[in-house]
Amino acid sequence: MTDFADLAQEVFDQCETLAQFSQAEGMMDRRFLTKEHQQANAQTAFWMEAAGMQTWQDEAGNQYGRFECSTPDAPTLLFGSHLDTVPNGGKYDGILGVLTPIALVKYLNQTNQALPFHIEIVGFGDEEGTRFGITLIGSRAISGNWDDNWLLLQDANGVNLSQAMAEFGLDYTKIQQASRKSSNLLAFVEIHIEQGPVLEKENLPVGIVSSIAGAKRAIISLKGKAGHAGTVPMHLRQDAVVAFAHMAVAINDIAKKHGVVATVGYLENKPNAVNVIPSRTQFSLDIRSEYDALRDEALAEIESQLAVLANEYQVELEWKQTHSASAVACDPALKSMLESAVADTGTQPLTLFSGAGHDAMELANLCPMAMLFVRCKEGISHHPDEAIQVGDVEASLHVLARFIERFAEENR
Amino acid sequence: MTDFADLAQEVFDQCETLAQFSQAEGMMDRRFLTKEHQQANAQTAFWMEAAGMQTWQDEAGNQYGRFECSTPDAPTLLFGSHLDTVPNGGKYDGILGVLTPIALVKYLNQTNQALPFHIEIVGFGDEEGTRFGITLIGSRAISGNWDDNWLLLQDANGVNLSQAMAEFGLDYTKIQQASRKSSNLLAFVEIHIEQGPVLEKENLPVGIVSSIAGAKRAIISLKGKAGHAGTVPMHLRQDAVVAFAHMAVAINDIAKKHGVVATVGYLENKPNAVNVIPSRTQFSLDIRSEYDALRDEALAEIESQLAVLANEYQVELEWKQTHSASAVACDPALKSMLESAVADTGTQPLTLFSGAGHDAMELANLCPMAMLFVRCKEGISHHPDEAIQVGDVEASLHVLARFIERFAEENR
Repeated sequence: MTDFADLAQEVFDQCETLAQFSQAEGMMDRRFLTKEHQQANAQTAFWMEAAGMQTWQDEAGNQYGRFECSTPDAPTLLFGSHLDTVPNGGKYDGILGVLTPIALVKYLNQTNQALPFHIEIVGFGDEEGTRFGITLIGSRAISGNWDDNWLLLQDANGVNLSQAMAEFGLDYTKIQQASRKSSNLLAFVEIHIEQGPVLEKENLPVGIVSSIAGAKRAIISLKGKAGHAGTVPMHLRQDAVVAFAHMAVAINDIAKKHGVVATVGYLENKPNAVNVIPSRTQFSLDIRSEYDALRDEALAEIESQLAVLANEYQVELEWKQTHSASAVACDPALKSMLESAVADTGTQPLTLFSGAGHDAMELANLCPMAMLFVRCKEGISHHPDEAIQVGDVEASLHVLARFIERFAEENR
Repeated sequence: MTDFADLAQEVFDQCETLAQFSQAEGMMDRRFLTKEHQQANAQTAFWMEAAGMQTWQDEAGNQYGRFECSTPDAPTLLFGSHLDTVPNGGKYDGILGVLTPIALVKYLNQTNQALPFHIEIVGFGDEEGTRFGITLIGSRAISGNWDDNWLLLQDANGVNLSQAMAEFGLDYTKIQQASRKSSNLLAFVEIHIEQGPVLEKENLPVGIVSSIAGAKRAIISLKGKAGHAGTVPMHLRQDAVVAFAHMAVAINDIAKKHGVVATVGYLENKPNAVNVIPSRTQFSLDIRSEYDALRDEALAEIESQLAVLANEYQVELEWKQTHSASAVACDPALKSMLESAVADTGTQPLTLFSGAGHDAMELANLCPMAMLFVRCKEGISHHPDEAIQVGDVEASLHVLARFIERFAEENR
């Protein structure tokens, strides 16, 4: 009998190995279509093949592995998550949801299980959206929600998406080949670290996701007027940073009042010299809630308050919405099958809500979707302190093995 | 008789020529020890020689020209200002105070005036401090206020000052050779655009400076905790940008209350991704007043308020003072000689205060110092819209010619 503890340790060690592929010295930073993305795909493909899978890369840079059952025209059960990270991020966010299913396939292969479906695993090339400001590029190419306008989006070095794809060896004119058909997909299941404190508080290794919050995002640009820091009286200034500061305070206050989360994560200032009054400040807004209506109510108040402040501090305001996703519920039948699998392993099947967006939101457009959360230390994510326990990976493998049995029974 | 109108036009055109030496496409940006600094020095030296001067560059990258009188051991009257600019700055800030005296020397040379002193003109390599965060590097090397600790300061690309000096062809072990002796310096006179709205409002081409405000500057670093923008509840965040926003609002309010000017010109955020709670935000504070006591009172309140806010928003605050200058009064005798020279040309001699710092502050450590301000359009500076009128340069040349006559009488 295969030892899940050994497989879990293997997954844990593989997370360490993948963490070496970072574009920045001394921290985790792996973005879409970089050399490090290429290295991560190659390494992942190697492990997929070792587990008994055929592998390929699609036209969006997503890495696939396929574990064939004996019936060629059988449908497919798809697992997966993303292989990219935020700058200074962690080793498990996304990664764990690619490597854990590979270990599962290795187990299925070693134990010669006859399944009525093929299993595929996909490592999405972009979920975080750090390089081009658009999230879920990998899964959107698969769900058919690719937008050709993205090809002109530029990264921080002025390289646009079409150039980056070409450098990666991808042909953007063939991007539609990455999209998948609903008809042969049975379901999509994503394993992911919780990125929140609930499972740790409840002392549980895993939890079942009920639904995924939808985020709205905007880039807001302020245009004031530069001037000498010593000679322009305070009352005559059009200082873009002062206007920004009042806006960031308002965003924080309004989010708290409505019980939603809002974040100004990105911030750029020009000319950015100690003795020059700032003329241009640009920043991002990310706002989320379990309930779309609540989020939109808070967002409307933020928009109207920012207009008032732009007028008061005499800056021009430009608001550009860059992302909008509705909350997505997990498939009830699939969710309840995951709950049963968790219960089968002797763990209390806790259902919880995801404040973070996931690739599963896009895959829900193609087929029934479910997610399994794995406990992470102090709920920390997008940070080098992101940490998991090997025992929780082992628990996830137990749950997935039971889930596969139940799923095979239902689909035989 | 030499035509000051022609000379003024020449100065105006030379400002255009120097503006071509910019490290950034489409905007004015010339920083200390760059290739463009080298080009500006070479071009300025060319004009100095054409005006009848000997030229050299000192060990701090300052460009000198010398117009010898017939008495070898005569003392020296020094003119000068800086040749560097802020990013996206103007064509006259600093530059005008180097090129106008060259035109004056050309006039003195052409009219064969016998002077009892040598005239030197210096183009300082760094006044703005944009590259290494320390201002007045050029004039501080001359005044003897050089600090070897600066050699380790890094620019935005991680190049430190000693490396930059070496690349520029300077030997930092010989930096003390750049310092000047008080004994042979009669006076320092700096011509500079006003960078404020007073002369335009009074409809005057030039004005005489009474004193120069002293600025204090600090770099303030905030350390919070990164986290996922969707999963960390608002009340559990240690968001460095939210803390910064409250601080910037407080700085603005406190400055207004005390009647001083305070500016947050520089701002850097990490990891600076749309979906990550900011963990580190760094910003600059520049605070100035005509009265040091008033400035320090406001600064003390800012320091104490920022400590309160750091505690409230749970970020670590690090405060590093990077610059401190006391207000510096111009030499009364020299100032009154400039006033007389202005009156001689039929212009009302208006005395005004400088909110901006100048190289003259450093030179005041060596010898009597005075400044002549030239009107600039709408008081705009540190901005591409910075503009002057040729007629005002002509007026400056008239004033300087009269000043030289008066100064020669006093020092014969």
